[in-house]
Amino acid sequence: MNFKLGATSNLARAGKIFTEHGEIETPMFMPVGTQASVKAVRIDQLNEVNAQIILGNTYHLYLRPGTNVIEKFGGLHKFMNWKKPILTDSGGYQVFSLSEKRKIFNNGVEFISHLDGSKHFFTPTSVIDIERSLGSDIMMVLDECPPFPCDEKYIKKSVEMTIRWASESKKYFLETENKYNHKQQLFGIVQGGVYKNFRIECAKKIIDLDFNGNAIGGLAIGEPADVMYEVLDYTIPELPKEKVRYVMGVGTPENLVECISRGADIFDCVLPTRNARNGQLFTKNGKLNIRNAKYSKDENAIDSSCNCFTCKNHSRGYLRHLFNSKELLAYNLATTHNLHFYISLMKEARQNILQNNFLDWKKTFLSNLNKNRN
Amino acid sequence: MNFKLGATSNLARAGKIFTEHGEIETPMFMPVGTQASVKAVRIDQLNEVNAQIILGNTYHLYLRPGTNVIEKFGGLHKFMNWKKPILTDSGGYQVFSLSEKRKIFNNGVEFISHLDGSKHFFTPTSVIDIERSLGSDIMMVLDECPPFPCDEKYIKKSVEMTIRWASESKKYFLETENKYNHKQQLFGIVQGGVYKNFRIECAKKIIDLDFNGNAIGGLAIGEPADVMYEVLDYTIPELPKEKVRYVMGVGTPENLVECISRGADIFDCVLPTRNARNGQLFTKNGKLNIRNAKYSKDENAIDSSCNCFTCKNHSRGYLRHLFNSKELLAYNLATTHNLHFYISLMKEARQNILQNNFLDWKKTFLSNLNKNRN
Repeated sequence: MNFKLGATSNLARAGKIFTEHGEIETPMFMPVGTQASVKAVRIDQLNEVNAQIILGNTYHLYLRPGTNVIEKFGGLHKFMNWKKPILTDSGGYQVFSLSEKRKIFNNGVEFISHLDGSKHFFTPTSVIDIERSLGSDIMMVLDECPPFPCDEKYIKKSVEMTIRWASESKKYFLETENKYNHKQQLFGIVQGGVYKNFRIECAKKIIDLDFNGNAIGGLAIGEPADVMYEVLDYTIPELPKEKVRYVMGVGTPENLVECISRGADIFDCVLPTRNARNGQLFTKNGKLNIRNAKYSKDENAIDSSCNCFTCKNHSRGYLRHLFNSKELLAYNLATTHNLHFYISLMKEARQNILQNNFLDWKKTFLSNLNKNRN
Repeated sequence: MNFKLGATSNLARAGKIFTEHGEIETPMFMPVGTQASVKAVRIDQLNEVNAQIILGNTYHLYLRPGTNVIEKFGGLHKFMNWKKPILTDSGGYQVFSLSEKRKIFNNGVEFISHLDGSKHFFTPTSVIDIERSLGSDIMMVLDECPPFPCDEKYIKKSVEMTIRWASESKKYFLETENKYNHKQQLFGIVQGGVYKNFRIECAKKIIDLDFNGNAIGGLAIGEPADVMYEVLDYTIPELPKEKVRYVMGVGTPENLVECISRGADIFDCVLPTRNARNGQLFTKNGKLNIRNAKYSKDENAIDSSCNCFTCKNHSRGYLRHLFNSKELLAYNLATTHNLHFYISLMKEARQNILQNNFLDWKKTFLSNLNKNRN
C-alpha cells in the first residue's frame, strides 16, 4: 500500500502517500522542476517553502543532460541533490505540445528535439526505461494528450491507444527493476477529452491495470474551467478510493480548491513558478502584478498575512524595483512566494478536511480570492 | 575613530572598521550590489557567505528607483533589508564610463541616463545629498577617473579638479547631517593616473582634508597589473597608517593579495559576481569554466576544499547542466560560490597577517593559484 486515506470532508480527501524518499501529505502541490531545477530556487529554499515533492520532466531530462549523465550520478535525486520524493511525467504532454514537430504512431511517438532538431522516438517501454534511469519515486505512463477541442472520432482512437500503451507500460514495469536503491511506483493516466463515455471507459480500463495511483490527464489545456470540473465530476467517482488521484497540469488556486472538493489529491502546474517570473504574485485576496507603478513606494509585504521569506523580509516597493530593473533576485523572491502560497494552500485545505470543515473553508477562501478581481 | 589597526605583517594590515551597522574586519572584500541587489543573491545568502558589507552604486540608484523612493523607505538599508554596513560609490566611475554620454565641467559632470536618455548633472555636493538619501555607512566623494592611458596634461587638470571637488565634498559633508538614525562616514579618493608626482601630490592634498578613510581610484581600468602595483608602491606609503585604505574596483584574487601585501585594506569588484554569471568559477587552484563539456559527468564539487553551500551540495556536472540549460539557479549557485571564495580569501589573509605569516602564505597561495593556468 502506497496511499492511506486519512479523512474526508464531503468529497474532499486528506491522505498520505508513502515513498522511499518520505511521506507526502495530501492534498498536495508539486513544484515543477523541468530541467532538474525548480527555476530560480535553491533546494534549501524548496524545503523552506515546505515542498514535499517536486516534478521532473522526462522529455526535457532525456534530451538534456540525457539519461547517461543522470545515470552516472545515480539518478535524478543525486544529480540535483533533492532528497525528498520526485515524480516524473512521461514526456507525453511535452511531446504532444510539439504539434508540428511530432508524429504519432501506433507503437509510440516520433518527435524532433526543440534543442537541436534531432529525431527521437518514445514508446511506452522506452519511457519506462528513461524513468528507471531518472529514478523518480513516481513514474507516469506514456499517454496521448489530445487537444481541446477535439472530435469524438479522434478521442475514440486516442483513448484506445492510451489504454493499450498503459497496458504495455504496466507489463514492462513489472518486468523491469529500479536501478537505484529505492522502489518506484507507476501511475496510470485517464484520458478521454470532454466526453463522458470515453472518460468512464478509459477510467475503468486504467483501473483494471492496477497502477499505484491514477491520474486524470488532458485537462487545463484550454477548456473552460466549468468543463474541466464537469469532467472531474463524472470521472473521479470511477477512481478507487484507496488510491491517490492526480489531476495533471492544474492550475489556479481556485482550480485546485475546486478539484480538491471533487476528490482530487495531487497537482502540478507551472503557474506559480512561471507567473512569478512575470511578476504575477498570488495572495489570499487575489493576484497582484508587482510590476505596476502603483507599488513603487509601497512598504507593505506582498501579503501581510504570509510568512514566507519574501513577505517577512521585503516590500512590494523593493520587489517592484527588482522587476523593473530586471534583477535576477526578483525571480527567486517571487517564485518562492508563489510556491509558498500554493503549498500553504494545500496544507490549509488538508487541515480543513481533517476538521471536516472543507466546504465552509472553501466558500470563504474563494470569496476572499475574488475580492480583488477586476 | 572609525578604524583600528590591529596587526601588521610586513606591509599587510589587519584592522577593524567601525560603523553604526556593525564592525568590519579587514582586509575585506565588498560584494557589489549595483541596483540594491547583489545580483541573483538573497540577503540571507549574503550572510551565509559572510559578507560584512556591500557596495551600492550611487549612479544606478539615483536613476532607479530614485532617491525619492529610497527616502520613502528610510534609506537603502531598509529598502533592501540589509542590516550590515553599506558603502556607496560617488557615481563618478559610472558617469565617466559613459564616455560619449557625459561632459565634464569645472563644477561637476553632465550625463545622459543609460535608461531613458534623460539629462542629469552631478556635483560634489549633489552627490553628497544623494548619498545622504541613500544613507550608506561609508560615502565616497565625487572624483574624476581619467582613462588609461592618459597624458600628463590631462591628469594634471583632472587631479586639480578631483582635489577641489574633494574639498567641496568635505565642506558640504560637515554642513549636512545624516537623514536617518545612523552616522555616515566620508572617504576621499586619490587619483593621478600612473604618474608618481600627481599621485603623491593628490594623496597629500586628500589627506589634508582629513577624511574618515582614503581610497585609491583610477586603477584596474586597463593598465597592466605591474603598473597598478607600482602605483600602489608609491601611493600607499603616503596614506596615514591610522586610516583605512580602499583600493577601488580591484580585482582578481591575485590582485587582491598583491594589494594587501602593499598595505591596502578594502576592495570592491564586479569580478566574482559578473564572472560567476558567465560560468567562471574561482578556486584555490585557479579558475574553471563550468560550461566546459568536460565537466558534464564530473561528480566533484567546484572545489572539494570549499565549504560554501554550492560546493557542499552540488557537483560540477550539475552546475554545468544548469549553465548549459540557462537555468536561473546557475547564477545563484555560481555567484554565492565566487563570493564565498573572495570573502574567505580575505579572512585567510587576515588570519595570516595576525599570525605574522602573510608573505609565506601569499607565496603558497599564488603558487597554487597559478597551477592550472594555461
